[in-house]
Amino acid sequence: MSVYTKVTEVQLADWLKAYSVGTLVELKGIADGIENTNYFVTTTHGRYVLTLFERLPARDLPFYLNLMAHLARHGIPCPAPIADRANRLLSELASKPAALVSRLPGVALTQPSAAHCAEVGSLLADMHIAGQSYGGTLENPRGPKWWRETGPLVAPFLDEARRRLLESELEFQFQSRDQIYGLPRGPVHADLFRDNVLFDGARVGGVIDFYFAGVDAWLFDVAVTLNDWCIHADGKLDPPRADAFLRAYHGVRPFIPLERDAWPVMLRAAALRFWLSRLYDFHLPRPGELVHAHDPEHFCGILELRIGDADPPWV
Amino acid sequence: MSVYTKVTEVQLADWLKAYSVGTLVELKGIADGIENTNYFVTTTHGRYVLTLFERLPARDLPFYLNLMAHLARHGIPCPAPIADRANRLLSELASKPAALVSRLPGVALTQPSAAHCAEVGSLLADMHIAGQSYGGTLENPRGPKWWRETGPLVAPFLDEARRRLLESELEFQFQSRDQIYGLPRGPVHADLFRDNVLFDGARVGGVIDFYFAGVDAWLFDVAVTLNDWCIHADGKLDPPRADAFLRAYHGVRPFIPLERDAWPVMLRAAALRFWLSRLYDFHLPRPGELVHAHDPEHFCGILELRIGDADPPWV
Repeated sequence: MSVYTKVTEVQLADWLKAYSVGTLVELKGIADGIENTNYFVTTTHGRYVLTLFERLPARDLPFYLNLMAHLARHGIPCPAPIADRANRLLSELASKPAALVSRLPGVALTQPSAAHCAEVGSLLADMHIAGQSYGGTLENPRGPKWWRETGPLVAPFLDEARRRLLESELEFQFQSRDQIYGLPRGPVHADLFRDNVLFDGARVGGVIDFYFAGVDAWLFDVAVTLNDWCIHADGKLDPPRADAFLRAYHGVRPFIPLERDAWPVMLRAAALRFWLSRLYDFHLPRPGELVHAHDPEHFCGILELRIGDADPPWV
Repeated sequence: MSVYTKVTEVQLADWLKAYSVGTLVELKGIADGIENTNYFVTTTHGRYVLTLFERLPARDLPFYLNLMAHLARHGIPCPAPIADRANRLLSELASKPAALVSRLPGVALTQPSAAHCAEVGSLLADMHIAGQSYGGTLENPRGPKWWRETGPLVAPFLDEARRRLLESELEFQFQSRDQIYGLPRGPVHADLFRDNVLFDGARVGGVIDFYFAGVDAWLFDVAVTLNDWCIHADGKLDPPRADAFLRAYHGVRPFIPLERDAWPVMLRAAALRFWLSRLYDFHLPRPGELVHAHDPEHFCGILELRIGDADPPWV
């Protein structure tokens, strides 16, 4: 359960008076999410999600909220932040920064088909294109700078083989940086796992949880997404799904030759980033967080597989 | 049928490449609407309405589209204009100004209950409040200036009794202008008839057709809405529905004493405005428009009833 901050109906009904969304009908805590407290909020006008930001840096919140508003304005099915009467997307509730966003239809899939992967691929490309006209700037907070800081913090918890893997991969990635330089960049979701896409039938009803977004190479986003959507349980890539995903993306926003060259490096980078964060959350949990920690081994395995795969699927 | 301008699937599929809404699945003309050509557009990402503006002054279109975007951002269930890759809400298709907006769920009601009227009342008040922070300015294009121009154009088509009614009401309204002066103002929908509100069950799924919107007294919007939602077929006000509507509005945005004083005048003004436009459309139709003309007599009757009702329902 991830309701860190309790909000009462009376408190919320009062808070909603600053909005134009009607009056409160129902308030319900959401068990998912490790960074924020989330509630489903139903009013006389519609269905929303209330988010109280527990840990994200306050200075970064406008980047996320304005990005979501920008993408929603472009027709991307993502939560649209609701402005209050003072026209602000960010407010405060229970002494926490708080935002109300539209609630989207659909359910997350655990076993996506190639057709689902194609939907996600074309939507991801559309998100990248739509994000081009977004003015916000926030370097990917889980990018290379963060890897460099986090590696030494988690290394002491690893056995010898894994420590060597981590150190050599960090070394490899930093040596490969000039291959990354010049890749097309823009706002990326950076966490487009299966649990962050809601399918409404065969169609994507919503892309959610933009709170790891930042500006980075689009290809990094492609790699993160593929590493979750197009794999078997053991982490091996599933060529039919990978093919469907990449072709659909390419159909909307054609890859450039530079991206082809960087692809194997980027698949490894995307695995490294999640191995690192899972190691960090597992070995250095924040209070109340341990129950949510994912097994870091999953991404250790994916990283090893991607290292071993010199010719990964491509369009 | 109101598809004045034919758009082919090939044409539209090409046009949609400038947007981030996926690819075309279905295109279907919409029979309603007298000012614009409308199509339902389904893409791989969602459901939209395409509007080609046939007659509205091009300079006014940004006011409407930005108002809709502003209200949608505040959680008002209205069509949200979709921005293209260049971040523009207004584009061009088939040599006409064109916009793509989100398609909302629900159906229009012909026999609203008091509960429906209450929903509309609170939503109208929320629209007014949310519109306060909108920066656009466009005087209500069917306001007093337009009445003054249009009266002499339609008077020659009227019999003696109706001409006297029209002239005396215009005279009455212009003499009452100082009672109107100082009423709270802002963007108003100005055409919130039953066919412009989609109910999704008991809840409003969408408020549509903002193409008569402008800045005017909020009370004018209240009067226009009440004159359609809270009447019997003969135009007489239905006190239970009027009461539910006004109380719900008042619950969100309390009326001020000045509005109470102006209320009988405003109900007459709202009737006059639609009598005039229906007379104009009936007697001076634009090419291809005759089939849509509503019977002007309905609002002549409403105007007479409002004149006779010195003490109309109020909260």
